[in-house]
Parts: sequence; structure tokens; C-alpha cells
Amino acid sequence: MKHLLSTDGLDPATALAILDTADGLKKTLLGREVRKLPTLRGRTVITMFYENSTRTRVSFEIAGKWMSADVVNVSSGGSSVGKGESLRDTGLTLAAAGADCVIVRHPASGAAHRLAGWLSEVGTSVINAGDGTHEHPTQALLDAATLRDRLGGIDGRRVAIVGDVLHSRVARSNVHLLTALGAEVVLVAPPTLLPAGVENWPVQVSHELDAELPTLDAVMMLRVQAERMHGGFFPSAKEYSITYGLSEARARLLPEHAVVLHPGPMLRGMEIAPAVADSPRAAITEQVANGVHVRMAVLYHLLAGEEDGS
Amino acid sequence: MKHLLSTDGLDPATALAILDTADGLKKTLLGREVRKLPTLRGRTVITMFYENSTRTRVSFEIAGKWMSADVVNVSSGGSSVGKGESLRDTGLTLAAAGADCVIVRHPASGAAHRLAGWLSEVGTSVINAGDGTHEHPTQALLDAATLRDRLGGIDGRRVAIVGDVLHSRVARSNVHLLTALGAEVVLVAPPTLLPAGVENWPVQVSHELDAELPTLDAVMMLRVQAERMHGGFFPSAKEYSITYGLSEARARLLPEHAVVLHPGPMLRGMEIAPAVADSPRAAITEQVANGVHVRMAVLYHLLAGEEDGS
Amino acid sequence: MKHLLSTDGLDPATALAILDTADGLKKTLLGREVRKLPTLRGRTVITMFYENSTRTRVSFEIAGKWMSADVVNVSSGGSSVGKGESLRDTGLTLAAAGADCVIVRHPASGAAHRLAGWLSEVGTSVINAGDGTHEHPTQALLDAATLRDRLGGIDGRRVAIVGDVLHSRVARSNVHLLTALGAEVVLVAPPTLLPAGVENWPVQVSHELDAELPTLDAVMMLRVQAERMHGGFFPSAKEYSITYGLSEARARLLPEHAVVLHPGPMLRGMEIAPAVADSPRAAITEQVANGVHVRMAVLYHLLAGEEDGS
Repeated sequence: MKHLLSTDGLDPATALAILDTADGLKKTLLGREVRKLPTLRGRTVITMFYENSTRTRVSFEIAGKWMSADVVNVSSGGSSVGKGESLRDTGLTLAAAGADCVIVRHPASGAAHRLAGWLSEVGTSVINAGDGTHEHPTQALLDAATLRDRLGGIDGRRVAIVGDVLHSRVARSNVHLLTALGAEVVLVAPPTLLPAGVENWPVQVSHELDAELPTLDAVMMLRVQAERMHGGFFPSAKEYSITYGLSEARARLLPEHAVVLHPGPMLRGMEIAPAVADSPRAAITEQVANGVHVRMAVLYHLLAGEEDGS
Repeated sequence: MKHLLSTDGLDPATALAILDTADGLKKTLLGREVRKLPTLRGRTVITMFYENSTRTRVSFEIAGKWMSADVVNVSSGGSSVGKGESLRDTGLTLAAAGADCVIVRHPASGAAHRLAGWLSEVGTSVINAGDGTHEHPTQALLDAATLRDRLGGIDGRRVAIVGDVLHSRVARSNVHLLTALGAEVVLVAPPTLLPAGVENWPVQVSHELDAELPTLDAVMMLRVQAERMHGGFFPSAKEYSITYGLSEARARLLPEHAVVLHPGPMLRGMEIAPAVADSPRAAITEQVANGVHVRMAVLYHLLAGEEDGS
Repeated sequence: MKHLLSTDGLDPATALAILDTADGLKKTLLGREVRKLPTLRGRTVITMFYENSTRTRVSFEIAGKWMSADVVNVSSGGSSVGKGESLRDTGLTLAAAGADCVIVRHPASGAAHRLAGWLSEVGTSVINAGDGTHEHPTQALLDAATLRDRLGGIDGRRVAIVGDVLHSRVARSNVHLLTALGAEVVLVAPPTLLPAGVENWPVQVSHELDAELPTLDAVMMLRVQAERMHGGFFPSAKEYSITYGLSEARARLLPEHAVVLHPGPMLRGMEIAPAVADSPRAAITEQVANGVHVRMAVLYHLLAGEEDGS
């Protein structure tokens, strides 16, 4: 594997190999005071974030540092972007400066794929850390790792993805990965927040959250991406919360064993009630912890793994 | 010691232990080309700054790196803060991502204590790097280290803190620590820049800088916190400078051995005359140098020290 | 060598020693998976950028990290600058905090020299990473390294520097270094974009790019520094492109062996045609790669080299 750009088309065997590596790393590091492996010593990883993010950038930075890589951060605030340089030239510059891997977050859907096309020629790996409304594959992998931890597996489990599916790269990446790993996925959203062509996705669609809850092994609440709303179709915050927010009453409709996920950052009271977010069935901080191990595993497979031609 | 949140209530024995560790680190590193200790290898320290700072963030970052910790910087500019996440959730996220210690600067007084309450449950240490007008304990510790270096001790020394005490977390932290270590503290400020209830503090109060100077072992000039002024009580810059600025003439009123401190950044000509700031009695760059060693010592006591139940 | 502030006055023997070190480092690291040398372990390097830059800051950061230095980034966005601190005090603070070397980019011409004057007293090295319209010496060194790679040497080669010479620190640094190393330099620019007193520079001046091209061993296109334009003399973007842009037709006027350089970031279609920038004669990504090795070499000569009194 040279790049990780999407979960769409990601070989299930490769996905499971990443999840197994992540699990192994987690067990290796668990309870250790010294969380440091020599695996990527002398390798250079650059994060190139054209959108703000704390958790994703920090997670990748820690993943790289725990494997002894040199990690360099570039953000659009202090970058050549302001001087009109193209994404291609910025990418080629970072590669020429020694990047073994560029981790890119970009507001344009498809940016990571284009960057990977340019950087393949020079042998630099690209990881998509979120591109527009397209994909965010490491988020889906960490969600899958969390579901495996909690549910013992993914195959045959029923998972709802709730909220603004239209603008959510997290939803897209999860649909591809979860279905590839054998889960049954139901999207729960108002018609205005579902993408065109959703009827061709390998999912069920529902507008009634309450009806789905008793059937679920996991419910994944999406962030309300206010900054990505361009139309006027979005219900008001209050209406959203009443219809699709995971209130305490709603959470009681879930089976005992069902897990609640949220990619964060959460708008408490909007997408999810504080008491639900802090309940034992919520796996939100486990998702964050798994994020570091999954990203270590991805870096390992891209930079230190055996060549497998894929 | 699990957190360092304030000097108010800090056990004098613990404070002295930190100062002794800092002094030991300073002597160990002094004159060495290679300033690197393995002490915190594999430990992860995150700075989380919701207010701008060069010197404090850089000082902590260098302290962590000299002890081989992995240091990750988060600032509000590029953080989830802009997405409405709460301080609690950001803190829990950073802890879940692997932070052994979060160093927080925040505009709200009490923010560090609240964060420590939340992060205690997950075993992550918190260092207060300045919260509103409340406390900045490592600044007080580095000031104390500098006074010990210069005066041979703190017990029985007379120290004036001059200027905008009302808005100064540096003043509060110094009052607590200096008096706990046996110094006599006098606050010199106009009535409008003294906090309500100052008569209950273990200090003397004066409005006449010139009358105090001949009695002092040290004078600590405060930064004029223009960005923290919310009322209209503040004298003009010129009036402030005439009444409370440390001019060359005023500095001559100090005893020969007396030390001049300033936490920086200085507004030269306003709080302090350039010739005074650059004179041998000023210890301003020594304060900065001690800052790194004190912060190394604090990180050591929080992350690598013996468990002492405190 | 204690500082690297300009190529003006840089001893050719020292310049060649840096280039030889850079070349040695490049050969040492070439094709290695683990690009990490222990040379600067325990040394602290601070980048202090008062202007945005991706490539220069990243290049220095990677150079430091590949030599195992601790690298700390300070930018004006999150710095004390906003609190009115002087450059001298910020510099002295960073030195007191442990910086062995401060790498400064500043909008004021001469800032690096002034900083070096202040920091010489405390033993901290300064590298000029670009000061106003004055100098950018590591850019000239990496350009020279690239020309040596491509042309086998610099002595006797004819190099054109094309475009906005008036505002270009890259042009100034290259004129000094290239002529010191024996090259023949011709500046190609409209009269309004040439500095006053250019007739005293050791260069030829031309306003006709087409006439020069067949005579050149290398052509160095300058960035159009729109953000540094203060007058109204600049031709329009289109006029500039027609008169001084390196189109495909123009590139065909160059001798077969001639090299095309650009310091980046490029405005493709403005200063240089995309097909020329991507052609084999362009050495633009080689410049970036050499930048890391040259900066490693500079850090080595400043911080780890033999004392030679210069």
C-alpha cells in the first residue's frame, strides 16, 4: 500500500490488517510509561492542513512521534498557499524537502487523490485526513477499531449513521468500510441532508431515528457541519436536535449492548445529550485513543510495511 | 504531586523541592553542549494555549524536549475551539490521544483547576500556564529561583510587586509563593489597580514607590496588561510611567544589592527604563533561563517523581 | 563562522566549504531510509518567522531534525510581537531560553544583522532566513549547490537573474555569491524594477530577455513579489508575463545545457510557463532538496564546526 486515500475500494483484507496492527500496537503500548517505538526513526512525516483541526492533526502528530518519525506541521495560515502556489507545487516541494509521507486535509473533495497522483512519481505517500465532503478514511478505521473492541466484530452488526450525511466525509468513509467488513448500515437523516444517488449506496435509508434505535448494535452521530452548509435546506438547530439529536430518552431505546459513537468535536445538547455522551455506552474517548493506534498502523503499513504491490 | 495549578496552597516543602530540582538541572546542564536528558522519553506533553504567548510556550516546549518528551502544541487558532467544543471535551480528547500532561493557558480564571478536575479521572496531569487574572505558578517559581540565586534565599527578604496588581496573575502567584517562603511582600499600586479584599492578603500595600525602594531586596515590575483592562480606571500610559515606572533615578534609590525583576514581555520606557532593564541589577534574562529549568523540574515532579500522595 | 547573515562579504572559501559539506551530507543520506544524524543532538534551534513561509521554515526544521537538534518554531501570529516586545528583547529571551541558533525571517532589511549584534554577546548564532529586500543567503547557497550539480561548477558560467530585482533579497544574495564564485551575472529587468546604484554592482544589466537567453548557462526567474510592491511602477501582470515571463518559446532560445531555476513559490503562467517549470531543464525541486542539505551544512558549520575565528 502506497497511499491511504479512501475506504472506497479499500481491500477488506488490507483494512483488517491495519486494524490488527493497530490492535497489536495498542496492546504493546498499554500501560507503558514509555510509549516510543523506533519503527519510523529517520522517516519524515509532514501534516499539511488547509482546514483547522485539533484532534486529527494532534492524533497523527502523536502517532508519528511515538514511532520516532520526524513530524513537521504545515497549515494554510503560515504557508505558501497565501502566495498563490498550487497544491501540486506545494506537495512536490514538501516531497523534495524530504517528506516520506504527506498527510493532507483540504476543503476540496478529491484533493488527496490528486496529490497522490502527483507524489506517486517521487515515491512520497499520501494520507487523506479529510477532503471536502468526500472521505476521511482514518476516521472510519478508528471507528471500526472501536466497534471491534466493543462488539467483538463488525460482520453482521447493524450500525446507524445519523445526521448530516450529505456533507459528511466521515459518513462516506464509514459506509464504504463498514459495508465492506460485513456490517448492515442504515443512514438516518432528513431527505435534504442525504446525498443525491443514495439509493445506489449499499445501505438502508430511514428518516425515523426512534424506529431504528431498538434494532442497532451501534449508532454513529455525525457532527453538524454548520461550516459546510451552503444551501438553505438545513433545519434549525432546535428542530435538528428534536428530530435527530440523541437524547437520554432516545438512548434508552437502544439495546443494552449498543454503542454510541461521535467523531467529535461534539456540540453537546445539539447532536447528543451530555448525559448520553458521558454514559458508559458512549465510546467517544475510546475512538480518540484508537485513532492514535490506527494512525500508527497506517503509517507503519505505508512506510515500513512489506512491499505488496498494492 | 499530580497537577500544578496555583501557588496558593502549595506546600512550601514541595515548592522548595521543585526549586532544588531546578537548581540541580541547571548545574547539570550548565556549559554542556548537549542539553538532553532521557528522563521523560516516551512521555507526551501537550501545550494548549488559548492566549498568545511566546516565552511561556517556548519555555515549556524546550523544557519538555530537553527531557526527551514528545511535545505537541495546540493553539486556539488551529483548534477545535473554533468548532464550539468545550474545554472539558478538548481536554479529555487530548488525554485520550495520549497526553501525560496538558499545559494550559486560558483567558478564564479557574480554567486550569476545572480542567484538572476533569483530567484527574484519566490520570493526566495539568499545569496552569496562566489562567485569566488568577495564577501563573511556574512564573512565581522561576521568580523565586532567580531571587534565591541573587539574594541567597527568600526568607526574610523584602520584595515589592509594582503596577497593575488587579489584573496580574503573576502578582497573585508571587504573593502566595513568596509569603509562603518567608518573604515580606509589599504591593505598590494605585488604589484602582489593587484587587478588592487586598487588605486580607498577607502583604503590605503602598501607593508610593519612591518611599519603598530604599527598603527593598527586590522589586518586581509587572507588565501593563492593556489587553486585560476592562474599566476606565487606568491612568494614562504617561501618568503610569511617571508614577510607577522604574526610571534610572528611581533605580538609584534601591540598595546596592537589590534585584530588579520583570516577567516580560517588557514595554521599555513604560514600566521600566531601558538603562535599568539592561543594568546588572536586572535579572530579566536570568528569569527566562531559570524558567526552562523550573519547568523541567515541574514536569519531572509531575511525571517522573516518586508518588507522594500529594 | 558564528552567524550567516548575508552572502555579501562571505569568504568564497567558506561558501565552498558549506557547499562541500552539503554535498557530502546529500551523498551520505541519498537513498537511505533512515535520514538521521546525531550531529546536533542536544542543541536547540529556534525559527522565528515574522513573515509567512512554508518552504524556508520547513526546510530549516527538517535540516535541524535530521541532525537531531531540538527545533522550536515561533511565528509572529502566536508571539510576544503582538504585545509590543522589541526584536532585541524577543531575541534575548529566546537565547536565554536556550537557543543555540535563532533562524530569523523579518520584513525589515537589516533585522538579522541587528539581531546578530545583540545575540553575539550571549553566544547564540543567527541565520538570516530573509530580511526585507536585503538578503536570503541560504537561498543563494542552495542555488549555487544546484548550479554546481547541473553545470559542474560556477566559475565562468553566465547566469541571468530575471524579474523584480528591486524587491528581491534572493537576487541580492545571488549576485554576491555567484560573482564571488566567479560567475558572470546579468540582471534582466525593466528599469523600474532595478535598484538605484545597480551600475556599481559587479553585474551586467539588460532589459531584453530574448537577447540574453542564447548566451546563458542558467536563468534564475524571480518571484513577483506583489506583496512588496509599494510604488506604481510595476507593469501589469500580463505585461510582465509577456516581457519577462519564461515562455516555452523563450526557453527554446536557451542552449541545450542551460538550467532554469526558480526560488518558489511559483506563479505558473506569470513568471514561468508550466511546461518550462516541469521540463527536465528546470531544477526547481532539486533546489528544494538541496535547500535541506545546505541548511544542514550551515547549521553544522555554525554549531558543530571547528572554531576558525571567522
